[in-house]
Amino acid sequence: MVQLFHQITICGVGLIGGSLALAARRAKLVGRIVGLGRTQANLEVAVARGMIDHATRDPADAARGAELVVLAVPIVTMRATLDAMLPHLPANSVITDVGSVKAWVVRELEPLLRDQMALVAAHPVAGKEATGAGAADADLFKGRRVIITPSAKSTPGAIAKLEELWRAAGAHVERMAPQEHDEILARASHLAQIVASALAAALADERVGAKLAADFGASGLGDTTRLAASSWEMWRDVFVTNREAIGAALRLYGRTFGEFAQLIEAGDMQALEVLFNRGRKMRKRLK
Amino acid sequence: MVQLFHQITICGVGLIGGSLALAARRAKLVGRIVGLGRTQANLEVAVARGMIDHATRDPADAARGAELVVLAVPIVTMRATLDAMLPHLPANSVITDVGSVKAWVVRELEPLLRDQMALVAAHPVAGKEATGAGAADADLFKGRRVIITPSAKSTPGAIAKLEELWRAAGAHVERMAPQEHDEILARASHLAQIVASALAAALADERVGAKLAADFGASGLGDTTRLAASSWEMWRDVFVTNREAIGAALRLYGRTFGEFAQLIEAGDMQALEVLFNRGRKMRKRLK
Repeated sequence: MVQLFHQITICGVGLIGGSLALAARRAKLVGRIVGLGRTQANLEVAVARGMIDHATRDPADAARGAELVVLAVPIVTMRATLDAMLPHLPANSVITDVGSVKAWVVRELEPLLRDQMALVAAHPVAGKEATGAGAADADLFKGRRVIITPSAKSTPGAIAKLEELWRAAGAHVERMAPQEHDEILARASHLAQIVASALAAALADERVGAKLAADFGASGLGDTTRLAASSWEMWRDVFVTNREAIGAALRLYGRTFGEFAQLIEAGDMQALEVLFNRGRKMRKRLK
Repeated sequence: MVQLFHQITICGVGLIGGSLALAARRAKLVGRIVGLGRTQANLEVAVARGMIDHATRDPADAARGAELVVLAVPIVTMRATLDAMLPHLPANSVITDVGSVKAWVVRELEPLLRDQMALVAAHPVAGKEATGAGAADADLFKGRRVIITPSAKSTPGAIAKLEELWRAAGAHVERMAPQEHDEILARASHLAQIVASALAAALADERVGAKLAADFGASGLGDTTRLAASSWEMWRDVFVTNREAIGAALRLYGRTFGEFAQLIEAGDMQALEVLFNRGRKMRKRLK
């Protein structure tokens, strides 16, 4: 297989960045892999696991020779990370990211790019609870969706190379506009996080007499609140950078939840059955 | 071990009734087990699996000799079931049930009882997706909670026997008042069902452009909506018979969800972090 990039630099060698490094290496699609990190300890894990050939905490060092820059750092720090690397990057570098919000990323990064550079923003819809290079897994993206969101500074060549890289990692690649991505994910992902967090928060200290109500929950309560255990740091970025689309998703949910409440209050079991079974059908269609 | 009851009659030999029959038999705590059912096919499964010694669709036949009657039928049909058996029951029968709402059951059944009869309402907090005698499992209650809700017509002797039966099935037994049970379960169980059903119903036909948003959900959406696949028939009964407590639980959730929405809209990340982490802490405490 022909190499796609002689050198790539992964900024943030955590679960996602590290897994992509492992998958790219296994597919023999990249030459040298450089890892830019904040903590020495995590970088050492990445080196020890053979993910990266060179570890650095210096953006200039990380930038030199990078044909592809993968921004796998928190969304709100992507701009500063790229800015620090910029003077030292090859003139025709391709920039990509793995953030779960896309219009914001495109808006922040595009103005930084020099003329011959390309930006191909992307979102691998994958993850697991563990974090850090120690949790990275070459199979993390196998069978998962990766959404590429081409924008004004994407070139056909850069898009094609990035799609090939993700396909080699086992992902199903598809393209959509950044804004479309954000509106879809607000509904399919960000909304569920807030619904789950709100249920967990509502029950956190809720007592009936002396008894904590949540102590009497069974597996159903556990499933419905599972997402509430997610990390605040990751979600803060999503709430800040996709606020408008999330607002629309919350209003959609608020209306349907309100309908449930009103029909239960009114004892209208006929209308409630229709609504309940609309949800039942949707859930049975999900994998 | 001394037998607790020479004969028990289980009305509704489905997942819960059938599992109790299997557990009681294994513990050798009951003599003859009679099963009252609606469909011949399910009763035949129960006989074939050795759950019951005698199968019948006739309430009078089922009533004769029953020292314990276990109502494992839908909550709203318990009264009619007991009413049909009443003329044929021994004078000092003990009546119990396995419904997931308790004040309503006590209110419906107590007026029917003859002087020497006792009622000990109970709720085994256990279940799985499958239904019917074929899904019954002697270990279904192992390590699960069974809540006994003593009321005016409960006698210490009847309570003690029933608790012994449930303990022999491996359950952790505890007592509380029927109303307390309903208020707790409205928050710990019924609320999660509605939260999950509302999310699934809201997303059922939600499109962004031509794309169905739910198609882009990952495992988090699957977890949060898992309960939405539950059977309407079972939940209709809960919604009808525990309406008031559910209303209070829905208002509790509505307030917290509204807080999330308002803080995201306002971009108040400091207050949102507190709320988010309240949910995170609750979820990490759950098993």
